[in-house]
Amino acid sequence: MESPSADPDDRRRGSYAKGVERRQEILDRAIEVFAERGAEGTSLRAIGEAIGVSHAALRHYFDSREQLLVAVYRAAEERTHIEDPNPPGTTAVGSMTNAARRNHAVPGLVQLYTTLVASALERGHDDARDFATARFARVRAELVAQVEAEQAAGRMRADVDAASVASLVIAASDGLQVQWLLDPGVDPAPSLEVLERLLGVER
Amino acid sequence: MESPSADPDDRRRGSYAKGVERRQEILDRAIEVFAERGAEGTSLRAIGEAIGVSHAALRHYFDSREQLLVAVYRAAEERTHIEDPNPPGTTAVGSMTNAARRNHAVPGLVQLYTTLVASALERGHDDARDFATARFARVRAELVAQVEAEQAAGRMRADVDAASVASLVIAASDGLQVQWLLDPGVDPAPSLEVLERLLGVER
Repeated sequence: MESPSADPDDRRRGSYAKGVERRQEILDRAIEVFAERGAEGTSLRAIGEAIGVSHAALRHYFDSREQLLVAVYRAAEERTHIEDPNPPGTTAVGSMTNAARRNHAVPGLVQLYTTLVASALERGHDDARDFATARFARVRAELVAQVEAEQAAGRMRADVDAASVASLVIAASDGLQVQWLLDPGVDPAPSLEVLERLLGVER
Repeated sequence: MESPSADPDDRRRGSYAKGVERRQEILDRAIEVFAERGAEGTSLRAIGEAIGVSHAALRHYFDSREQLLVAVYRAAEERTHIEDPNPPGTTAVGSMTNAARRNHAVPGLVQLYTTLVASALERGHDDARDFATARFARVRAELVAQVEAEQAAGRMRADVDAASVASLVIAASDGLQVQWLLDPGVDPAPSLEVLERLLGVER
């Protein structure tokens, strides 16, 4: 068991800013590995080897494998929001279709997301549970606001409950991405387009 | 490593029928444990201890932990179909709402399903992948037939593609069950009712 301050690079540079930078470098490298390979049930040590970082360095920044997995997914999602944002005027369902299409190019991250959500349902996986619960709550709140705005602007049927639609759209997007990865014949786009058309959305 | 014929009970009784019966007994006990506890990332040995079956006996019937998990989920699903079938006239979406409600009472099995699907996305998990791929294909085919029948009978809008609706309904049901387990405030029923109403389904 290494001491938590065992990252030699970090000790040498010895500043908080350098520590933050180094953590980000590790996450950046980890994102590439996970995008390609997924979680694969590997240990923190095996992950360190795959991204070329010592186990000691990983232990310095992440208490557990699960904490690293959560950090990798969060960082990858933030990066996507910055590098490939939805164009203005994207509808609620449209934003989910965009996300599904983007994610299909990085199956490892879809697999990582699915693994984290599965872990969140198990006892004793607090990091995964906190991540999944907070993420669902945030995405739901964003979608409820967007659905209500579309309804108020007369661009979506107003006789459907915004919260029910938000949960439905998230579930549809999550579930369709999994089906798509397992069967290339299942494309989320037409299913989400059906849903959008039924909701009377004008693009 | 035990030999694959190391179940003493099985050797004593020494018949194929007894072996099938014993395997079913193990699955029955395992279903109870998983319904309550979920997969919990336990080893085959720990699972054996939890259900009071020797590791040798488990190894006799199941080559791996993953094979046991798949068998437990399949057996639990079959049992539900026999003990709590959908009443005649249940709609395609209605059957998913029923399943979601039934499954909520056994969160361990929802967690087991989610774990198996997450594993199916990882390389080298052939048992989970075969299970998930076959199950999605089967449920999709059943739902496509049902949607087409409802459309032909004038009980569902005919201007939506049956295959797109089938994938959408499965995804919605899977995803909503996960959100429900993580947040009791998310009930799949109203979301699935919105979808059914939008599809113009007459119950």
